Amino acid sequence: MSGAPSLSRPDAPDAAVLQEIQAPVHDALARVLDEMRRIATADLPMIDSLGGHLLQMRGKMFRPTLALLSSAAGGTPEPRAVTVAAIVELLHLATLVHDDAVDHAALRRGVPTLNAMFGHQVSVIMGDYLYSRALVELVSLRDIELMHVLAHMTNRLTVGEMRQLAAVDRLGFGEDEYFELIACKTASLLGAACETGALCGAPQHREALRRYGDRLGMAFQIADDILDYVEDSAVTGKPSGNDLREHKVTLPLIAALPRLTPAQRERVDALFAAEVPSDALIGDVVAVVGEAGGLDAARRRAEGFAREAEESLSSLPASVARTALADAVTYVIDRRW
Amino acid sequence: MSGAPSLSRPDAPDAAVLQEIQAPVHDALARVLDEMRRIATADLPMIDSLGGHLLQMRGKMFRPTLALLSSAAGGTPEPRAVTVAAIVELLHLATLVHDDAVDHAALRRGVPTLNAMFGHQVSVIMGDYLYSRALVELVSLRDIELMHVLAHMTNRLTVGEMRQLAAVDRLGFGEDEYFELIACKTASLLGAACETGALCGAPQHREALRRYGDRLGMAFQIADDILDYVEDSAVTGKPSGNDLREHKVTLPLIAALPRLTPAQRERVDALFAAEVPSDALIGDVVAVVGEAGGLDAARRRAEGFAREAEESLSSLPASVARTALADAVTYVIDRRW
Repeated sequence: MSGAPSLSRPDAPDAAVLQEIQAPVHDALARVLDEMRRIATADLPMIDSLGGHLLQMRGKMFRPTLALLSSAAGGTPEPRAVTVAAIVELLHLATLVHDDAVDHAALRRGVPTLNAMFGHQVSVIMGDYLYSRALVELVSLRDIELMHVLAHMTNRLTVGEMRQLAAVDRLGFGEDEYFELIACKTASLLGAACETGALCGAPQHREALRRYGDRLGMAFQIADDILDYVEDSAVTGKPSGNDLREHKVTLPLIAALPRLTPAQRERVDALFAAEVPSDALIGDVVAVVGEAGGLDAARRRAEGFAREAEESLSSLPASVARTALADAVTYVIDRRW
Repeated sequence: MSGAPSLSRPDAPDAAVLQEIQAPVHDALARVLDEMRRIATADLPMIDSLGGHLLQMRGKMFRPTLALLSSAAGGTPEPRAVTVAAIVELLHLATLVHDDAVDHAALRRGVPTLNAMFGHQVSVIMGDYLYSRALVELVSLRDIELMHVLAHMTNRLTVGEMRQLAAVDRLGFGEDEYFELIACKTASLLGAACETGALCGAPQHREALRRYGDRLGMAFQIADDILDYVEDSAVTGKPSGNDLREHKVTLPLIAALPRLTPAQRERVDALFAAEVPSDALIGDVVAVVGEAGGLDAARRRAEGFAREAEESLSSLPASVARTALADAVTYVIDRRW
């Protein structure tokens, strides 16, 4: 599974949907980018050029969008929500930089990684730098609750990374372990984006929005792991079946495993025995997982989490922000499975 | 220059001096170790085994010693100083883990690095984990001033790492750049250890103790960089001339460069041109640096910083802690040059 659930590219059909979700916070999102640039490039010319590159490789600003919408959910978003959204996105970018360094990845979202451009040393240090700069900015807001949420989030992210290492090359990696992994690695960040956003304007909805973000994150990651099976590289920006190629065990495979015929199981075992599985073998296992119902089962789980996310919004007053948050749920699970 | 100014080994003659410095906080130091273990091993069995290894590779607990002595400098150390000292040491260990990952180092203080034992991936993630766990613990103390000091410190450390990359393979790396580098990379940590210690019992001496720690750190790193030239591997735990081997430009060489004869300069250029310099060539350059007065000049700068460190203690009331802090200055610059 990829550390960064990649949203679809700008030219994809659902870009219009995302634009609609982001419309209520469009101006604030532009200010988030300025804040990110200010925070990331404070110390050195060398860091300046790296920071510029990182901002290029940003995704669709999905996490800042969630933070800003959450801050608006009570009707009175605070200006500091922009800084908080920038901090959340920078913490996210820091983890992506280390993910790429750990994976020796060459591309992310079609853009060369820091790792590929500047080498491994700079990537590790640059991740540390981004993280510490975001932390300095966070402390300067002098809000212990924000620090509490984000400190625990970064800890959960690293525990998720550890668990991810354990998910490679292990066909015994089970559903509970998978859910715990994606809760740490993906849901914690979306939950914290919403919770810290709520702390900047809608503190009475803090718990509901955290739960919303958490469940949305679970659906988001499952959807991403399904996309790895079903979409071709033109859409995801990475080769199809990439998780299988890297021997990463995700929900579609976990759900399929108990239902395989011996012949199907043989294909799966062959893939995990091959150090560099052939494209044909990967294609076989992708087909096997679909035939055995692994994709359908994973879709049902994603839809269950999506429903819980939507239900979490029920205590919020009707608002443009709430509507956009509800649309974000549809957006996450509608990514052309 | 090594990221970790390594104190001498337990069997070295100055171990007795260190023991004397640590005597006033001996019991508290034992509690710091317990705190480190508690903080580092909170989440996973895998992390548990790694954490145990990390605690093994801890040094002489010099930073926690400084923090505890600083907290006692006003006569009323607070119990939370133990936790703060543990957080400072864990942040330090996190940077060492990433240093080793970046350098692909196999040994640190004679103990195999995490990098060598568990591979590069685990090292990067483990550093992140330690850092985030220390942060969670820090936030739970709910003291913005402590967070402020330690957030800025970690940022300075990463900027120092960046600057260090720029100090490799660059004979034009100058004295000002060197001092800025070690201020970020070493002095910031010792300064923050003393300042956060002061915040836990001696806040009226916060500024004096920060300055003390900062200047001590400058002397400490220069001494370490001198030791890399003059001591053999049995004492430092690493090969002599190691910085030269890695093309790292430190103060002894910087001070010697303008005074070299053409023949001496030719040796230096040859070393920096050789991808893997021979031991003989390294030995030549070590000798050249000494003959040109580079080591003497570096010693004078270290002694200057040491004097400033001692002077910073003048506003403190007489106490066992103050005496130990003064002894720490002597200890740092007396490491058998």
